[in-house]
Amino acid sequence: MTQHRATLTEVARRAGVSPTTASFVMTGRTDMRISVETRDRVLRVAHELNYRPNLMARSLRSKVTQTIALISDTIATEQYAGQIVYGSLAAAAERRHLLFIGETEGDPVLEERLINDLLDRQVDGFIYATMYTRRARVPRSLRGQRLVLLNCAAAGREIPAVVPDEVGAGRTAAQALIDAGHREGIHLVGERAPHLIAGNERIQGIEAALGAAGTSLAGSVDCAWWPESAYEATAGFLAAGHLPKALICMNDRVALGVYQALQEAGLGIPEDVSVVSFDDSDLATWLRPQLTSVALPHQWLGRRAVEILLGEAEHRGVERLPMPLRHRSSVGSPRGRSRGNG
Amino acid sequence: MTQHRATLTEVARRAGVSPTTASFVMTGRTDMRISVETRDRVLRVAHELNYRPNLMARSLRSKVTQTIALISDTIATEQYAGQIVYGSLAAAAERRHLLFIGETEGDPVLEERLINDLLDRQVDGFIYATMYTRRARVPRSLRGQRLVLLNCAAAGREIPAVVPDEVGAGRTAAQALIDAGHREGIHLVGERAPHLIAGNERIQGIEAALGAAGTSLAGSVDCAWWPESAYEATAGFLAAGHLPKALICMNDRVALGVYQALQEAGLGIPEDVSVVSFDDSDLATWLRPQLTSVALPHQWLGRRAVEILLGEAEHRGVERLPMPLRHRSSVGSPRGRSRGNG
Repeated sequence: MTQHRATLTEVARRAGVSPTTASFVMTGRTDMRISVETRDRVLRVAHELNYRPNLMARSLRSKVTQTIALISDTIATEQYAGQIVYGSLAAAAERRHLLFIGETEGDPVLEERLINDLLDRQVDGFIYATMYTRRARVPRSLRGQRLVLLNCAAAGREIPAVVPDEVGAGRTAAQALIDAGHREGIHLVGERAPHLIAGNERIQGIEAALGAAGTSLAGSVDCAWWPESAYEATAGFLAAGHLPKALICMNDRVALGVYQALQEAGLGIPEDVSVVSFDDSDLATWLRPQLTSVALPHQWLGRRAVEILLGEAEHRGVERLPMPLRHRSSVGSPRGRSRGNG
Repeated sequence: MTQHRATLTEVARRAGVSPTTASFVMTGRTDMRISVETRDRVLRVAHELNYRPNLMARSLRSKVTQTIALISDTIATEQYAGQIVYGSLAAAAERRHLLFIGETEGDPVLEERLINDLLDRQVDGFIYATMYTRRARVPRSLRGQRLVLLNCAAAGREIPAVVPDEVGAGRTAAQALIDAGHREGIHLVGERAPHLIAGNERIQGIEAALGAAGTSLAGSVDCAWWPESAYEATAGFLAAGHLPKALICMNDRVALGVYQALQEAGLGIPEDVSVVSFDDSDLATWLRPQLTSVALPHQWLGRRAVEILLGEAEHRGVERLPMPLRHRSSVGSPRGRSRGNG
């Protein structure tokens, strides 16, 4: 079923040169004297016959296959994964590299098998990505390989890693409220848990920025990072008589639930309550009013990981990529004095 | 930087056998008499030395690389792309195949280069995917290759293709309303345009189901397939005095805009207006009330394409995968008589 591929021998025969001459022309080697006419004739015939050098055979000699692999714990469940894949893909394509993709679902046995299968195909390097920022245990079979970690870092190892600057993001979100004049009644909506590295770093940044402005969080609304949980927690919080002035949501999905609860309680955004969030997902532009959110740099993480992997960036340790603020319509100046007990 | 890989020669030397014997053991060939003891010794040494057969060298002989490529016009911009990738990846992994992934952004030059680069690495077959259902022009360089189209079909060619059954989906959405007792004031919200194949097929199915129930669409609200456009069009429609009983939204993003407009107008879902949609994206479960939606079978499309590509399913022409209804809380029985002019 596969189309016939002309061999180098056929090209040589048709061009009336020896296979060695044809090979020297096609690989661009200059350590053999070849006339311009001969060179042009070989290239023209190669083009006519649709000859393509067999990269796999060549890679056996050169040890470079121009392929890299992106291994992730999960590709499907997170919409952001597409952005990481896209960034890696674009950066690889610009450098004429192809991208293998693999998902392990966090299963160490699957992971080991996948890595071995990729090593069998002699990929030039690996990007090991996690969808949530976390400490990673680097699989044994990746030791000694060219490797860049994405969204995770390995403890006590000098493996290059790219992660979002979550502390900076927390600072940015809080600063957006401070700049709008907020000092009182600022609440956090989301979950605090030791394993949620991104969340903890965001909170660290928030507290630092508020502290520098001479204020602090008035309290928090505890919920999981999902709309329904955020809706219920916020609705309960409002029903208990709290009147926050500003809510910092741990992500855009939490903000969706917060919007639903505020609107049901007849509170205007941002007239009564300002809302700021993290992620800058599609949702942020779809909500009414549009949501001010601190963007996750997912495409950029993918791109940067490839640049480091292919040796274009000198790099050791962990590189933190900035998370920029997307200012929209959900943050306003506080109206009047804080009316509630926060 | 790459770890040393034991060669077959090293395995043979350590096991005290000839390289030929070692090769026969490692490739599982049975046309040479080898004692069980020798076989076990070779396998044990291979394991100890972390020997892995060089698949690339082997593939030069066997012409099978156990790699397939998924080429798409866009991976990043659509959240559904992740589902297609995931389905393909899972099906490929189960069959011990690796997946190359490539994006062309619809650029024919990029596409040609990508395909050639993949052919140079001798992939066993291609899945050519589009994010929106459409007629595809199959790239010249893919002719004669093992190929399955995903979400698209080629005119007048006998290339296997898998697409969602959009006509059936239209019928399913309309039937959900009919089953709830709706006959009057059923409106469509979305865009009609010749190039929107999915949309046109959905409408075809909707009209067929309504016709079979002795009714028809009362009208439509024209907007692009995005929340903001749907919000504005629906708000305008309601402001003009229309009082629909049920809205069929062309996708979940349209439904989000419709929800915003209905809630702003003080209309309850589903007490005043029933809403049904297509896609069954994350949004469907995030909205309040949760949205009844007809699911796009994206994971299944990816999975099925791999099965056909690897020859497990006898297949010619276009296979249409069913789109199931996810019944949630946005469809109710009509209250009283239709009050508006629809």
